[in-house]
Amino acid sequence: MSPWRASVLTLFPAMFPGPLGFSLAGEALGRGSFSLEAHDIRAHGLGRHRAVDDAPAGGGAGMVLRADVLAAALDAALAPGDARPRLMMSPRGRPLTQRRVRELAAGEGAVLVCGRFEGVDERVIEGRGLEEVSIGDYVLSGGELAAMVLLDACVRLLPGVMGKAESGEEESFEGGLLEYPHYTRPREWEGRGIPPVLLSGDHGRIKAWRREEALRLTAARRPDLLARGDGEP
Amino acid sequence: MSPWRASVLTLFPAMFPGPLGFSLAGEALGRGSFSLEAHDIRAHGLGRHRAVDDAPAGGGAGMVLRADVLAAALDAALAPGDARPRLMMSPRGRPLTQRRVRELAAGEGAVLVCGRFEGVDERVIEGRGLEEVSIGDYVLSGGELAAMVLLDACVRLLPGVMGKAESGEEESFEGGLLEYPHYTRPREWEGRGIPPVLLSGDHGRIKAWRREEALRLTAARRPDLLARGDGEP
Repeated sequence: MSPWRASVLTLFPAMFPGPLGFSLAGEALGRGSFSLEAHDIRAHGLGRHRAVDDAPAGGGAGMVLRADVLAAALDAALAPGDARPRLMMSPRGRPLTQRRVRELAAGEGAVLVCGRFEGVDERVIEGRGLEEVSIGDYVLSGGELAAMVLLDACVRLLPGVMGKAESGEEESFEGGLLEYPHYTRPREWEGRGIPPVLLSGDHGRIKAWRREEALRLTAARRPDLLARGDGEP
Repeated sequence: MSPWRASVLTLFPAMFPGPLGFSLAGEALGRGSFSLEAHDIRAHGLGRHRAVDDAPAGGGAGMVLRADVLAAALDAALAPGDARPRLMMSPRGRPLTQRRVRELAAGEGAVLVCGRFEGVDERVIEGRGLEEVSIGDYVLSGGELAAMVLLDACVRLLPGVMGKAESGEEESFEGGLLEYPHYTRPREWEGRGIPPVLLSGDHGRIKAWRREEALRLTAARRPDLLARGDGEP
């Protein structure tokens, strides 16, 4: 099987792999479990100054990434028939969820477009079939960190990246719940103990306690997750 | 005024500043608009191997970051009386919003704890008053990218970081809406034009059209934002 393939379009190709070159993702990259190419949008900029943006039609703040420039960068980066999802990181997009991360990780890879400036000309979003994806309800200075977040979330789920010990089967959002609290040695720390049930060796009771705690925590912090009721965020 | 101060506790200090060394954040860092220190948790690890984690009490997958080790790292990194919010990046946390980003940016800085492994011993979260913050409903391999996302979102709002032209007053989530579509030159691209109203020069009509589009887009993509009805995500 060919490795999971990520192609990033950015004005800051030197940001990559950046944090993705460390730890779990870095090891996966080194082993070839996935590939990561960063394509410089500016290489397709116009004129002597390789301009990539222009003033917004209708006036207003900031600059808008040109449709022709981004389309040229995409067309040069992607082979004809490339069927990977084309995602544009944007606070206007559909919120990323762990379910979507699993879907993406199960596919052949992703194309990630990182916007900068005030925004991106709407026509290239339509004309090149870009799907806007948001990593959360806040605004970043560009799409690069958002792309890295999406990639990190996907890469850890690729076959062989996490050991069986960290199989991702018991973690937040699996089963639609936040994760229960964790404890480890020492048994007492600054007068705080470990809940006795966890030291009981009774696996049935431990499992029940963890489920109860996960439910309690989710109800307290994220009633919206329970309300969705589909067992998945 | 002293600059906004970020202190990050991580097992991968070399990841920082990483992407925050580029573009808007990188320029702000270079100008001293904020400061960023990365503290190595492993420097407080135990024994010859500087162990930082141990098996979860009660059994289960993965490893848990020890309370004593993380507390020692925090105590060494923070001066007594440091009043900055102490945030732990975690999918179990309260979801980050642009409102919270504005609050944090208006303060004196933040302490950001990056978890790794299966989780962090609950007792240090309680004992050191860590507030869990989530950047979205997905799971990352560690808190570092989440910390960078939070910092990037804050830093761009610091005084003098964005030019007046990108003042952040008209962007997604301001006013509780997603942002309207943008267009720029050329006037026609691959047979697609710019909506005529944007070329009309009539600022009243342009403003009304943008408001209408922002409402339409928000209703179509994020009815949850409209339903909150507080004008803020």
